[in-house]
Amino acid sequence: MSEDQIRSLPGTEDFMPDGWAHRRTLYREAARQFALYGYGELHTPIIEDTRLFVKGTGETTDIVEKQMYSIPSAEGEGITLRPEGTPSAVRAYLEKNLHKQEPFQKFWYAGPMFRKERPQKGRLRQFHQIGVEAIGSSSPLLDAETLLLAVEILRAAGLTKLRVLVNSIGCPACRPVYRDELRRRLKARTGELCEDCRRRLERNVLRVLDCKNEGCHRVAGELPGPGEFLCETCRDHWTQFRAALQACKIDCEEDPRLVRGLDYYTRTVYEIKHEGLGARDTICGGGRYDGLVEELGGPPTPCVGFAIGVEATLLAMEAELGPAPDSSPRPSVFVVCFEKSGLGRCFELVRALRAAGVSAEMDYEARSAKAQMRRANRLGSPYCLLIGREELEKSEILIKSMADGAQWKAAWAEGPAEIRRAMEPPRK
Amino acid sequence: MSEDQIRSLPGTEDFMPDGWAHRRTLYREAARQFALYGYGELHTPIIEDTRLFVKGTGETTDIVEKQMYSIPSAEGEGITLRPEGTPSAVRAYLEKNLHKQEPFQKFWYAGPMFRKERPQKGRLRQFHQIGVEAIGSSSPLLDAETLLLAVEILRAAGLTKLRVLVNSIGCPACRPVYRDELRRRLKARTGELCEDCRRRLERNVLRVLDCKNEGCHRVAGELPGPGEFLCETCRDHWTQFRAALQACKIDCEEDPRLVRGLDYYTRTVYEIKHEGLGARDTICGGGRYDGLVEELGGPPTPCVGFAIGVEATLLAMEAELGPAPDSSPRPSVFVVCFEKSGLGRCFELVRALRAAGVSAEMDYEARSAKAQMRRANRLGSPYCLLIGREELEKSEILIKSMADGAQWKAAWAEGPAEIRRAMEPPRK
Repeated sequence: MSEDQIRSLPGTEDFMPDGWAHRRTLYREAARQFALYGYGELHTPIIEDTRLFVKGTGETTDIVEKQMYSIPSAEGEGITLRPEGTPSAVRAYLEKNLHKQEPFQKFWYAGPMFRKERPQKGRLRQFHQIGVEAIGSSSPLLDAETLLLAVEILRAAGLTKLRVLVNSIGCPACRPVYRDELRRRLKARTGELCEDCRRRLERNVLRVLDCKNEGCHRVAGELPGPGEFLCETCRDHWTQFRAALQACKIDCEEDPRLVRGLDYYTRTVYEIKHEGLGARDTICGGGRYDGLVEELGGPPTPCVGFAIGVEATLLAMEAELGPAPDSSPRPSVFVVCFEKSGLGRCFELVRALRAAGVSAEMDYEARSAKAQMRRANRLGSPYCLLIGREELEKSEILIKSMADGAQWKAAWAEGPAEIRRAMEPPRK
Repeated sequence: MSEDQIRSLPGTEDFMPDGWAHRRTLYREAARQFALYGYGELHTPIIEDTRLFVKGTGETTDIVEKQMYSIPSAEGEGITLRPEGTPSAVRAYLEKNLHKQEPFQKFWYAGPMFRKERPQKGRLRQFHQIGVEAIGSSSPLLDAETLLLAVEILRAAGLTKLRVLVNSIGCPACRPVYRDELRRRLKARTGELCEDCRRRLERNVLRVLDCKNEGCHRVAGELPGPGEFLCETCRDHWTQFRAALQACKIDCEEDPRLVRGLDYYTRTVYEIKHEGLGARDTICGGGRYDGLVEELGGPPTPCVGFAIGVEATLLAMEAELGPAPDSSPRPSVFVVCFEKSGLGRCFELVRALRAAGVSAEMDYEARSAKAQMRRANRLGSPYCLLIGREELEKSEILIKSMADGAQWKAAWAEGPAEIRRAMEPPRK
């Protein structure tokens, strides 16, 4: 590549035609599970009013503080490339007045998200998420259903080495008590905390629990988990959630340190990790966010949802299933044209094959026979049609099976039908 | 919706679960045709280096002059939300060194594009395109193939009222002569042109031909088309392109006024319009762009491609096929739970149905029987499972067919198998 060529931006990726196999499997299996579980597809715009994320994702989160791609705008507060899908789903729910018409809704979405992070393996600036939001019910069965659904999708994509972590971080009734207790204990040890966590002490003290910094991690290990501080309603919710998972035979580990990085979570939080990955092993995160709809101007409306990180999941699929097979197009037939003057007729033949549902390709330049056969081989087409002067004159085609080298002739107009017959699986 | 709720940005849309039917048909049929025609899926990032579009789309285009969403960036020249797909495809082709490895490539893509235009019906700021780029061949057969492919996709989506317009705008050898002739003629009549076109006179005189302004339109009608000025190579290319289309029985109209809005086109340009639409009736545009790869720092590499405007095509489908049917999830089974204490067991039953491949739903709140039946009806589930105290005690299920009201019992564990049997099409 020459110096003056323009490159893709750091943290963004091209998906080339050969690399789709695992990705397609994941999306296909997700769509199949969404249909079984009754989640409807919701597609919100890539760009939103910046205030949606400041209010929804939360002013004190890393995302809003430093990771958003925002465009100054003459009208309003500016435009932001969505860093996550949840606030947009809630915005759409309210804007379409679903809270008045049919308050209980189950949505799924899949698409690109944008965060200005330091790019590294499995962490991109344009990354992709597949997620669900179940809006309008506080039933702990839905906490279990969403987690179950995430597990089913990942299993259907071929993953088995999954670890499911669950926790409850309480509600606005009991969390303040827990927060105060954390602050009280941490204030004595601020010297051991990183700079971010010292700031978090006042603004977002729960985040100290999952700080990756060694000192903070050590301190956090000695702190009580939120579970010990749950109010009765939260404890009841937790018990039912755990019972539903147990009934469905989902193995879970309770992790009192699990808090998730977003402000809006209440009660249940969960993560799914994959054992084939290194330090960044979380492939799905989710939980309940009962306050978000109200925060965004709607009526009190409990919600629960998750997001699967597509790139991390693809790394897990590679680790567990091996590299994805080549997904480049592999036309069933390659038409080799030995006579430049016959190019137009070969083009018609290719067109007739495709119209008959047979994928077909040719060399549009009528290069040398050798070059054409090489391309046919590279494409992996199981049949070639060899068209030379004789075939053109007699309106015949010479069919060659690339697997066994067998060759036979057919009338020109019979080409598509003949290939379809040849491609049929042998009768038993 | 209350005043303080945050709305979606003007020119952006939510796709709700009920409105996907036509869109899914279009994407499914496009993917099917791409496989038949041997185009491989290429997915480039939403965000790119701003220079890619300044150089690729062209500094003098409306898009680059006034319609790009750009984000200032500390490093480099800034980031832009892609306004179209072609420069990105070429950038990826060069960045992956395909010009050195396998110079002939056929790509397809589908995704959102962004242009800051005045929003109106069928014209959004976040809109969607399905397109192809055939890179590395100057064969006029590929001009015909891409146009044919676009027509096949639109036909497969159910559209018949299509008009295909074609033209040739020449190459760097013959276009300057034509441009000079246009300028010579227009300079005498600048008073009749709009302000934009007076500016275009020097920078981009061809665009005067398709200006929508009444005065410009009248003047343009009296100008010669580029066809009269083609060099021999361009004329030859044009003749072969027309012959290939004729052989494939594609009806075309030659439109000497057709120039397309992008700087990079050479020789063939085409558009597909739909008769069911009003003034903005173009649903696909494409053509040859032999200079773009070189412009972006690669070797001379001829290309041809098109983009289908998804939103305009959906309007055409609505006009020709009627409104899309409701695409909301429609679970096969709705489990109605009459006993709050049985909610957990009903949840297990729903889970067992889904695991057996039967889509299933329930009321997670165990509301009144009436409310549950109402929801089952609204969802349109063909079967309900009625679970009351008796069923729970005897471990039975009561199955109700909603079509004919028939009811029968089955053992609890037999539920999924029983429903699968009931759903099977009757034997002939």
